Amino acid sequence: MLINCVAYQEGKKLSDISVEAISDYIQKPDCFVWVALKDAQPDELAIMQHEFGLHELAVEDALRGHQRPKIEEYGDSLFVVVQTVEMDGDEMSVGQVAMFVGDNYVLSVRNNVMRGFLGVRARAEREPHLLAKGSSFVLYALMDAVVDRYFPVVDALETELETIEDRIFIRGSQRTNIERLYELKRKVLMLRHAVTPLLDAIGKLHGGRVPAFCLDTQEYFRDVHDHLQRINGALDTIRDTIGTAIQVNLSMVAIDDGEVNKRLAAWAAIFAVFTAFAGVWGMNFDFMPELKWKYGYAVAISAMISVCVYLYYRFRKSGWL
Amino acid sequence: MLINCVAYQEGKKLSDISVEAISDYIQKPDCFVWVALKDAQPDELAIMQHEFGLHELAVEDALRGHQRPKIEEYGDSLFVVVQTVEMDGDEMSVGQVAMFVGDNYVLSVRNNVMRGFLGVRARAEREPHLLAKGSSFVLYALMDAVVDRYFPVVDALETELETIEDRIFIRGSQRTNIERLYELKRKVLMLRHAVTPLLDAIGKLHGGRVPAFCLDTQEYFRDVHDHLQRINGALDTIRDTIGTAIQVNLSMVAIDDGEVNKRLAAWAAIFAVFTAFAGVWGMNFDFMPELKWKYGYAVAISAMISVCVYLYYRFRKSGWL
Amino acid sequence: MLINCVAYQEGKKLSDISVEAISDYIQKPDCFVWVALKDAQPDELAIMQHEFGLHELAVEDALRGHQRPKIEEYGDSLFVVVQTVEMDGDEMSVGQVAMFVGDNYVLSVRNNVMRGFLGVRARAEREPHLLAKGSSFVLYALMDAVVDRYFPVVDALETELETIEDRIFIRGSQRTNIERLYELKRKVLMLRHAVTPLLDAIGKLHGGRVPAFCLDTQEYFRDVHDHLQRINGALDTIRDTIGTAIQVNLSMVAIDDGEVNKRLAAWAAIFAVFTAFAGVWGMNFDFMPELKWKYGYAVAISAMISVCVYLYYRFRKSGWL
Amino acid sequence: MLINCVAYQEGKKLSDISVEAISDYIQKPDCFVWVALKDAQPDELAIMQHEFGLHELAVEDALRGHQRPKIEEYGDSLFVVVQTVEMDGDEMSVGQVAMFVGDNYVLSVRNNVMRGFLGVRARAEREPHLLAKGSSFVLYALMDAVVDRYFPVVDALETELETIEDRIFIRGSQRTNIERLYELKRKVLMLRHAVTPLLDAIGKLHGGRVPAFCLDTQEYFRDVHDHLQRINGALDTIRDTIGTAIQVNLSMVAIDDGEVNKRLAAWAAIFAVFTAFAGVWGMNFDFMPELKWKYGYAVAISAMISVCVYLYYRFRKSGWL
Amino acid sequence: MLINCVAYQEGKKLSDISVEAISDYIQKPDCFVWVALKDAQPDELAIMQHEFGLHELAVEDALRGHQRPKIEEYGDSLFVVVQTVEMDGDEMSVGQVAMFVGDNYVLSVRNNVMRGFLGVRARAEREPHLLAKGSSFVLYALMDAVVDRYFPVVDALETELETIEDRIFIRGSQRTNIERLYELKRKVLMLRHAVTPLLDAIGKLHGGRVPAFCLDTQEYFRDVHDHLQRINGALDTIRDTIGTAIQVNLSMVAIDDGEVNKRLAAWAAIFAVFTAFAGVWGMNFDFMPELKWKYGYAVAISAMISVCVYLYYRFRKSGWL
Repeated sequence: MLINCVAYQEGKKLSDISVEAISDYIQKPDCFVWVALKDAQPDELAIMQHEFGLHELAVEDALRGHQRPKIEEYGDSLFVVVQTVEMDGDEMSVGQVAMFVGDNYVLSVRNNVMRGFLGVRARAEREPHLLAKGSSFVLYALMDAVVDRYFPVVDALETELETIEDRIFIRGSQRTNIERLYELKRKVLMLRHAVTPLLDAIGKLHGGRVPAFCLDTQEYFRDVHDHLQRINGALDTIRDTIGTAIQVNLSMVAIDDGEVNKRLAAWAAIFAVFTAFAGVWGMNFDFMPELKWKYGYAVAISAMISVCVYLYYRFRKSGWL
Repeated sequence: MLINCVAYQEGKKLSDISVEAISDYIQKPDCFVWVALKDAQPDELAIMQHEFGLHELAVEDALRGHQRPKIEEYGDSLFVVVQTVEMDGDEMSVGQVAMFVGDNYVLSVRNNVMRGFLGVRARAEREPHLLAKGSSFVLYALMDAVVDRYFPVVDALETELETIEDRIFIRGSQRTNIERLYELKRKVLMLRHAVTPLLDAIGKLHGGRVPAFCLDTQEYFRDVHDHLQRINGALDTIRDTIGTAIQVNLSMVAIDDGEVNKRLAAWAAIFAVFTAFAGVWGMNFDFMPELKWKYGYAVAISAMISVCVYLYYRFRKSGWL
Repeated sequence: MLINCVAYQEGKKLSDISVEAISDYIQKPDCFVWVALKDAQPDELAIMQHEFGLHELAVEDALRGHQRPKIEEYGDSLFVVVQTVEMDGDEMSVGQVAMFVGDNYVLSVRNNVMRGFLGVRARAEREPHLLAKGSSFVLYALMDAVVDRYFPVVDALETELETIEDRIFIRGSQRTNIERLYELKRKVLMLRHAVTPLLDAIGKLHGGRVPAFCLDTQEYFRDVHDHLQRINGALDTIRDTIGTAIQVNLSMVAIDDGEVNKRLAAWAAIFAVFTAFAGVWGMNFDFMPELKWKYGYAVAISAMISVCVYLYYRFRKSGWL
Repeated sequence: MLINCVAYQEGKKLSDISVEAISDYIQKPDCFVWVALKDAQPDELAIMQHEFGLHELAVEDALRGHQRPKIEEYGDSLFVVVQTVEMDGDEMSVGQVAMFVGDNYVLSVRNNVMRGFLGVRARAEREPHLLAKGSSFVLYALMDAVVDRYFPVVDALETELETIEDRIFIRGSQRTNIERLYELKRKVLMLRHAVTPLLDAIGKLHGGRVPAFCLDTQEYFRDVHDHLQRINGALDTIRDTIGTAIQVNLSMVAIDDGEVNKRLAAWAAIFAVFTAFAGVWGMNFDFMPELKWKYGYAVAISAMISVCVYLYYRFRKSGWL
Repeated sequence: MLINCVAYQEGKKLSDISVEAISDYIQKPDCFVWVALKDAQPDELAIMQHEFGLHELAVEDALRGHQRPKIEEYGDSLFVVVQTVEMDGDEMSVGQVAMFVGDNYVLSVRNNVMRGFLGVRARAEREPHLLAKGSSFVLYALMDAVVDRYFPVVDALETELETIEDRIFIRGSQRTNIERLYELKRKVLMLRHAVTPLLDAIGKLHGGRVPAFCLDTQEYFRDVHDHLQRINGALDTIRDTIGTAIQVNLSMVAIDDGEVNKRLAAWAAIFAVFTAFAGVWGMNFDFMPELKWKYGYAVAISAMISVCVYLYYRFRKSGWL
């Protein structure tokens, strides 16, 4: 579905143009065209391929979802794929933005993305001195928008980790903890899939050998690179911490079990002693003088209780109860 | 066993040719020969070695199975080994395709491969404008076919992992889980053996220093590279998740054991108390007034049951039962 | 908040100058300006941006906190971000110092830093032969001060680790140990966030391709690099040791539990034997001659105790008790 | 001990020569000398050092055993150390072959190697067209022989791993499994010591900057490199699998223990119930009407057995027994 | 404290010289000065700094202990720090040797080193043809001496590991094993701190870009590099093995506990059965015919014992006892 198709000159919007007019505009110097598609159909992309002269392999990749983020050069143009990651309630939703960028055009195709990029275009149009840098600035603005949306996701993951950490040393919460840690790990890996390949690829847009039309915007791409590294560092820390937390959780299970075992042992001992005494006086020997005493029973019960109380205090003191 | 031996000119099939005619055709300019062998015998390969002038070490490698995937240059020609991985029911079957590629010939030798590559040839012949790119396009088409067949295998592994994940927090399934995780790990390692060395090697076919006859098809090989990276990323995630799942599974075993221990402790305590009381009134003291009471027995039984019921509720409340 | 704004010539302080005068002074040859801000507001930085001609993206980064440490070149000037890490009681406090460095100016902006850098300026003014090296020496002096403040933090972490290690093989301290190890790990990761990116970045200031105005101070930056490597090595060792300590702690839990189980088994056996004997002589068979004996009871009790004492010694000998 | 000392010309054996004649032959063009020593003594090597003009440090290394595999250039000559690994029954035996290779000589010195290299010389003499490539081909032939002997060792390790894997999910075999896994790990590390340094070093003999006299045999060394990579990949897989197997084994211990605990709990419960009932009817209350009934005893025993049988079936159903 | 201060010419000792004469001698061509200090004080180093013209930062590093091993170039001279590691009984003692090396001088400063380097000087003076290579040979000789002293330390660690390995599968030694493994790990990390940074640094002294005065001794430094790699490889193996040993030890604890649990279960069952029977015949039913039989008691006892013996053999057979 076509969202926008606009021609710009020296950073200012010329006009909305028809798809058929694209090939005319991209031949004018100092002029560039910025087209946005959403959940594009093969026939829509075929038209675009014709208008812009796109490479077959790139178009195929844009149609298929679940691409790895990447930045590929086809002759003088770039084909960029980035993944969007959005929180949809408790779940993470992964979408894709494919961008074809030439000296004087940007074509963005988004699939399965919940929140659009109209704001990016609006802001760019309010800053004509920046938009005048051309198509590479549009590419930067779109990538920056995508990457900036990773930060709230990272925050959500960090908050979840902190919530789990607060409960990690609490008795009886280990089952829930381990389930949540596992789920968290899964989400971290999903976000990493969006971040790491892009981190590797974006080095092509600043530093050494940069495509000609990106020379002026290098510092902007370095800024995106820096954001990605920050996210990547945060994800590494979360992963590392999850690993340790799982180990620690197992230790807590073992420690808690050990304490239960000790209490079991202690109570078992107390009752075993009680029963053993009762067994003694339940024996049928003819000559057991204490059985004849008037207060024998009272004394026996008292003795049995005393021993058990004594054991109770001793176990208590040694920390078993 | 010879499957095909065909000469092509400008992307169009000239004719099936005899093996002896190969050396004639590969001397014609604008013409290339595409030969496919299956489970080749030493004598068949010796003929091919003679016709194409293949290097001794490469031929030896093609005869032996279980080669690492690799791309080696011998003078102006390439020797490529890739592994096929196919699902054969629940088991993975690993085969090998060795390819000798020169400026004007492709010789592919497949061993232990279940599904052939006739479809690749058919499709290539339907696209003469691509086939006109020559032998390197055939190499691409074959490698692409092999790599595309990894995707359903990865999908099968991911599905298996998800099935295990659905059961990982269910009591009593830990033994099965651990067996399936171990088996899954084994399969992942098998597929990795096919993918990782190829990923390292394929960089030679695009980017920096590419053999002369592959210059036009660089972007195609980059596409294969990209697919391999996607597969590799997916395998890394599966491996990482398996590792975590094994740890989590062990935690679940420990947690479940801990719960069983608690229940054991609780029931043991209840019966120990019951038996202790019975032991008291089974003692043979002469003066135990309650034994004489008419409702002593009923009261005693009631008391014993009451205490046990009380304990039961208390344990229940504290989550032990 | 402006802290200082001073102009220097040939390593000697000229005078405190007003903010508006900055742009005049930085045009004089052999003269440089060193400005220090604290918790700068957007409007303060806007003035500085104007005076020094700073890049928009760098200014944005300096305003936002929680940046990764980094060293970026903007044309002929450098933008440096370092993190300060200070112990605030038992907690670690992370701040940020952003530095804009040109051939003849240094602008440092610190956020959330407890201890200031007045001492650095004082010491630099006492060593005019060094300060004469210009702005790059000031950059070195500030970075060196920040990095030197990591050492006491590392020492505190090492001391904490040693305290835990002293208790790791002591029975009953495993719960506390694991909590402290987890907390320590968290702190190590925080400090690593400050150290590792800086370690990667600082290579730009010595060795191969160094900004022109840093050529004379390369050896000083190499010294900072060396300090960072020392810290990084120490952190790696702490991390590695924490990992092992967590594993060892789990082993100790298991060993201690095992010993408790053995003792439980031993005492359970002793009482079970005692009760079994009592049960035998509590049976109601008519013909049990020993019940009639005068010393039957005494003999029985003695036998029961003897067996239990024998068991006790045997268990003791085999290390179960 | 001198094994062979032979001069070759254009790939054909000239004659066995005396040690003293070596220095004459190595001055003739188109001629090379191949000397093999076994468990060489210092004085033997001193003579060789004199004849061939070997570097002091290399000779020292050849005398000492337990060197790391390495390839070092001394001027125009190479000093190569490889380790042999042979199965000696169930144990692995590690030996060493040191090779001094110049443009027109090869001196090999083997220490603690069980199986010699006479077959390598014999085969080389049967292929004069290959031997004509000179000393670098001899170096290749020797290295290839050493590396080929790693394959059966890897196979033995893989077979051992599979044997353990077959038993890993069998109850009661965990102690043996863990001992065998540990032993296997030890062997893998030994073989890795022979393989990994050589893998790093052999890159010097093909590709970029190759010693002049190895230019013609590059493809052969690449083949050895490829074999080493295959072995290395296999060892990595074994190591990875051992790690997982140890984890899985621990899980199986925990699962088995858990099952034993459940059975223990179940049987304990059954007997506890039985004993509790017996305790009730063993009480001495005067008014316990069921004690007077004629079939009271039979009914009681039946009731007790019924309850226990009922518990047995219930536990059985829930999988505890 | 000054130990030696000697001038050499063409590999031969000229004479002991006074500290003040150093600056004269180092201006003579073909002459070099070798000075050794021990636990140097600031004032001693200040004199040396003046005589040799040493860089301030290097002198500071030499005064402070606990430096990372490193090799730094200051103009045409080198500043080298290596750590000595010596066994002091069971403990490891870490010292430091700082070396300032110029074209015609070597100044070594050792701190906290137990065994001196007089032997190195003596041996060097006995080999004038080597000492004639100048100051870089002295640097080599000192570094080689330090690195050679790592080998007995590695041997001690390996011996300790083997001792632990011999006990790892022995019941009841797990607590000691884990303590010793932890201690061993600590020592390995200490030695690694001495080895790894030096390994990274020493590459600067052979191969690509070597300081001019080290060109002739490259092969010697490569030899030291090789020794360090050997030590590093050995340490990696020890670390890897310790990791596995800790895991294995935990498994052994679990297996041993499991066996104890089984025995506990078995004995508990035997006594529970015995007591249950006794309980039955201790019941007070009026009509229990077997109680009246003459041999009832004997039969009952026999039956009870028989059942227990039967259970004992069954448990024995199934490996629980």
